[in-house]
Formats: sequence, structure tokens, C-alpha cells
Amino acid sequence: MTAASRTPIRILGIDPGLRSTGFGLIDKSGSALSYVASGCVKTDAGAGLPQRIATILDGLAEIIATYRPHQAAVEIVFVNVNPQSTLLLGQARGAAIAALVTARLPVAEYTALQVKQAVVGHGKAAKEQVQAMVARLLKLPGTPTADAADALACAIAHAHGGQGLGALATLGKRVRGGRIV
Amino acid sequence: MTAASRTPIRILGIDPGLRSTGFGLIDKSGSALSYVASGCVKTDAGAGLPQRIATILDGLAEIIATYRPHQAAVEIVFVNVNPQSTLLLGQARGAAIAALVTARLPVAEYTALQVKQAVVGHGKAAKEQVQAMVARLLKLPGTPTADAADALACAIAHAHGGQGLGALATLGKRVRGGRIV
Repeated sequence: MTAASRTPIRILGIDPGLRSTGFGLIDKSGSALSYVASGCVKTDAGAGLPQRIATILDGLAEIIATYRPHQAAVEIVFVNVNPQSTLLLGQARGAAIAALVTARLPVAEYTALQVKQAVVGHGKAAKEQVQAMVARLLKLPGTPTADAADALACAIAHAHGGQGLGALATLGKRVRGGRIV
Repeated sequence: MTAASRTPIRILGIDPGLRSTGFGLIDKSGSALSYVASGCVKTDAGAGLPQRIATILDGLAEIIATYRPHQAAVEIVFVNVNPQSTLLLGQARGAAIAALVTARLPVAEYTALQVKQAVVGHGKAAKEQVQAMVARLLKLPGTPTADAADALACAIAHAHGGQGLGALATLGKRVRGGRIV
């Protein structure tokens, strides 16, 4: 047993958004992943941007203080068709990363493609497939919400070293059509 | 003499950017404005986004700790023609606002139009006009750099309560063609 397998590494995955920032925490013990917590930080759509950014910062700071993750992984957001939405999303993502670096967490970034490849096996997976595979990989009793599932999926992608299902294959698991069999 | 005129209010203006975040500090004593400091926080273009955001946070935290402003004013950035640039700018702006709200500063936001109206008298002023008027309004010995001038202009707009040159007129100053005469 290696030192890495004895000490679980706790990973905080983040799916940034101004309205709702999803978070998901998993523990990686050697090659085994286990669920810790997930949810989302919601901001008041009627509040000004500084107030909404404060809500994201305070929410993530509380989650970090409660669960004490060692590493963080943030999904690289899409450029939206609406430039104003892109700007707002960028600001929310900047605030989320600010919360992580303020807590001195190392921050890795993954594209949606990398995240989907890591949990489903291909980059064109639907939201529902991601949710189902996250539930399966982490042995959840139910299906997580889309925000939480994306955040957990990002944490899983990081746990796999961004190698997608190639990493799973080395664990003696087989993948067929995006499912572990 | 009112209490407001006896106790100067120190305003930190911010012109956000990923490569360079301009800052400018002014004191407002009653209706008089005076220059305190200005400059910019530059990030390493070769570093990853989390590292660049950390640089912005650390830089602004140091400025806030050194000059102890009471209020902050941030320019509302343009949506760029390039969506990827818009996303990067949004992230930088989100990080800058995160630094301000972390320091518990009240944050006001002003559009470039409002800022130009406040310092030059109309919204179509060129960058050089803004620089010249900031130097004049704050009695600077030279012309500030564009980043610093925009940040100082934003602080001036906030000091004027976002009222543009109407506020200057009440100080017994006349404005003609964007110049105080």
C-alpha cells in the first residue's frame, strides 16, 4: 500500500455560474473514489453583481472550511451566444476561482469535453448521461442535480488525472458505450 | 463645516483587465478631490488563469491594506467583439470585485459612458482626453498611464455621485467643451 492510497485526497469540483455555482466533493483513496458532499451556491438574481459575487465567495469559503479539500478542479465554461451572458458567466467563474485561490487550493481546469470523456467515455454525452454515470461511479442512492453532477464530474475528471476512462481501464474496469460493465 | 468635509472619504477606482488591472485612489474632502496613488497590477501572460487571478487578488489586497480606502468603484467593462476575450475580461473583473468584497468594501459600478461624462462632460471622449482631464482635476504633475487614468476617472465619477459634470458645476467651476475653464 502506497502513501497515496492511505491518505485520501479530497477534491472539490466546481461548475461555475452566476445564478448557481455547483460544487461536488469526492475522496480519492488510491484508485477508489468516494462521495463526500455536493450541492450548489445560489445567488439572488435581484441583487447587484458585487453582492452576488460576495454570495459566491462566502458560500464557497464555508464549503471549503467545512470539508477542507486538498485540491480543486473547475470546469472551463462555454462561450455563450449572448456576449452579455458570457461576461456575467466569466465574472462568476473569476469569483469562484478567487475563492479557491484565496483558500490556497491548487486549481486545475477542465473543459466540458474532458469532463464528459472522464465520466461517460465520450465528449458528446447528454446531461442525463453525466448525471447517471456520476451516480454510478460514486455509488449514489439517487441522481444528483445537473449542477452538482457537473461539479462532481469535474472532480472525477481531476481524480483520473484528466486521462478520461483510460484511467478507469487501468483499474480493471471495462467501459462499453459510456458505461462501466 | 460638515462632518463629511472634515473626514476625507478615500475612494479606490478600478479599471479591470486580465493583463493589467488599473487602480487609482483619491480622497474626497467635502467637495474637494485629491490624488492619493495610482498604478496597475500586471499578470504574467504565460501563467495559467488561477495564477493570474491570484496575482490580481494579492495585488489589490496589498493596495487595500496599504491605502485603506472606504469605498470602491469599478468600471463596467465592454463586451468585446471576441467572445473568448470577453470571457477572460469577465473573469478578471470577477476576481477584482472578489478582492474588493473580501475586504468588505462597498462596491459601486459605472459604465465607461458614466465615467467619461463625469470627467470630460460627454461620453464620447477619447482616451487622451480622459487622461488630460484626470491630470487636471487632480492637479497631477504629469499625465497618468491609460489604465491608471481610467481607474482614477472611475473614482472621480463615484466621488461625484455618478452625476457627471453637474456636480462640478455646483462647485463654482464652469465647463466648456469638456474642459474646466
